[in-house]
Amino acid sequence: MKKVVTLAMGNGGIENMELIQKTIQRHLQNEYLTKAEDATPLPPLENPAFTTDSFTISPIFFPGGDIGKLAIAGACNDLAMMGAKPKYLSLSFIIEEGFSLRDLEKIVRSMKKELSINGAWIVTGDTKVVPKGSCDGVYINVSAIGERVISSSQENIAVGDRLLVSGDIARHGAAIFAGREGIELANSIESDCNSLWPIVEELIEADIEIKAMRDATRGGVAAVLNEWAMATNTTMEIEEGRLSIDEGVQGICEILGFEPFVLANEGTFMIVVDQNDAMRAQEILQKHNPHAAIVGEVSDSYPGRVTLQSEWGTKRFLDMPTGEILPRIC
Amino acid sequence: MKKVVTLAMGNGGIENMELIQKTIQRHLQNEYLTKAEDATPLPPLENPAFTTDSFTISPIFFPGGDIGKLAIAGACNDLAMMGAKPKYLSLSFIIEEGFSLRDLEKIVRSMKKELSINGAWIVTGDTKVVPKGSCDGVYINVSAIGERVISSSQENIAVGDRLLVSGDIARHGAAIFAGREGIELANSIESDCNSLWPIVEELIEADIEIKAMRDATRGGVAAVLNEWAMATNTTMEIEEGRLSIDEGVQGICEILGFEPFVLANEGTFMIVVDQNDAMRAQEILQKHNPHAAIVGEVSDSYPGRVTLQSEWGTKRFLDMPTGEILPRIC
Repeated sequence: MKKVVTLAMGNGGIENMELIQKTIQRHLQNEYLTKAEDATPLPPLENPAFTTDSFTISPIFFPGGDIGKLAIAGACNDLAMMGAKPKYLSLSFIIEEGFSLRDLEKIVRSMKKELSINGAWIVTGDTKVVPKGSCDGVYINVSAIGERVISSSQENIAVGDRLLVSGDIARHGAAIFAGREGIELANSIESDCNSLWPIVEELIEADIEIKAMRDATRGGVAAVLNEWAMATNTTMEIEEGRLSIDEGVQGICEILGFEPFVLANEGTFMIVVDQNDAMRAQEILQKHNPHAAIVGEVSDSYPGRVTLQSEWGTKRFLDMPTGEILPRIC
Repeated sequence: MKKVVTLAMGNGGIENMELIQKTIQRHLQNEYLTKAEDATPLPPLENPAFTTDSFTISPIFFPGGDIGKLAIAGACNDLAMMGAKPKYLSLSFIIEEGFSLRDLEKIVRSMKKELSINGAWIVTGDTKVVPKGSCDGVYINVSAIGERVISSSQENIAVGDRLLVSGDIARHGAAIFAGREGIELANSIESDCNSLWPIVEELIEADIEIKAMRDATRGGVAAVLNEWAMATNTTMEIEEGRLSIDEGVQGICEILGFEPFVLANEGTFMIVVDQNDAMRAQEILQKHNPHAAIVGEVSDSYPGRVTLQSEWGTKRFLDMPTGEILPRIC
């Protein structure tokens, strides 16, 4: 018989303890989790940064990852983008009655792997079970505390800075859509879902003057660039031809009728560096993904806007995304 | 026309920004939230404690509170129980498409009120919208960072210590059940949902030697006492007659066939103090709730067990709760 999560496993009693101990804690054990009571005491933090992310992705398992990998990578990436080393994470499950215990364990194992890539620990947790039809399988919240090593922030962005992207874009959104709709393509598309702290650490160690970073998740590259342009009242000038898009991803975009600029990424980020460091930053990024590139620069020509220059030299504005763009991609 | 949350409001684009700014941030604004990017930089923390809690309660609005009040109080109480002053909170919504914007705003207003009672701030957030049928209205995760003022922990519990309860028990579980089933009682039952930091602060300021505290949420008083007994290999000896139970709550318990000891509380806690401080602690607690009482003591008669002595002197074991105890009470 298939073992599944039952309502009793969310009761705060014996079955709840067993679920937590046997399926979750067993894989994530560490000295902090051992000490966890209502809250977990942590060592002092000098320059803490804090973030939260809930994950409701469908399907839960997708080419290139699953909700567990995504939850850890996603929350840790938010810290990495602020120049913070991921350290202490909370993990909260909302599980639908009847969810497979084997799938839950698979998700927890993915988390374990991703935690070790980030050098981070789950230090506190919570598990709720809701009746059938009150959740779609499993939802996960990860909140994360990190220590800031550098002060990257959109506040540092200045005219003349260079804009880089860490790889080819739109793979996560395209992979989720393909998986959800059962679209089979000759070259199956994998999500870019990945932890970014190791790359960020390499950039920091190479003394690259990082101004700002942001992973291009919901709303894609278009959302990041527009947020930066609006927040700093500058112009993000992008050369379209410098952005790489996988052929299969391009195909999915055509089916969807979406521009790849608005599709989500989960392991690809935009970075703003001082112009003198752009070439070195590109070299480091390209070691991880050959499609990483300097894609544009910050100017003051159209304050608060993003411009996209085609390979033929024509320019257009890239707007903030609007409407229903693939729900539940994260 | 009733204004509702749409899938587009979770897109990472314009509609998403509007939802967050107009309905959520507007009420919760503070200097940290203003600076929030992917993660929020925080001041140094000397003795941090960290906790997380997801709330899936049904009904969302109940006598004595709503999911917003509960989420802030619940997460802050986890910190308070570890002797930590609640400070920086994350707030993550999973909202079902079609959920009333007015109800969402009502929830956010409740949060604001409860935040000010705790002297805490929302410093980072996330909002996801899922299609109809993938969530029951709204689920909320709050993760919270506090500064520990004292080191209360079950590790401090020793034989001879006194056990106190901060008020009458089982009101939250009974109120939720009554609300859900539409049971009308002459004296309508209100949840005890409340923030505990102000009481804890008073105990600390009075120099009470607090050994351990725990709010008796899921699994009720029975779960807390059993966890302490097991973790410390001591016996929690309780005199049944010293625990107060409201008449209406008692009635609901009879309908449910539950013992009030297993029903959830959301503003009532158990506290272990040095025997010399028990009377003073009781006095302080009784200022807030006249039903607060010294209810027993820690012994070594049955290691790892909880005993309940009736008013006629007979003793029985109170076990760790098991089975389906009212799902979705928090």
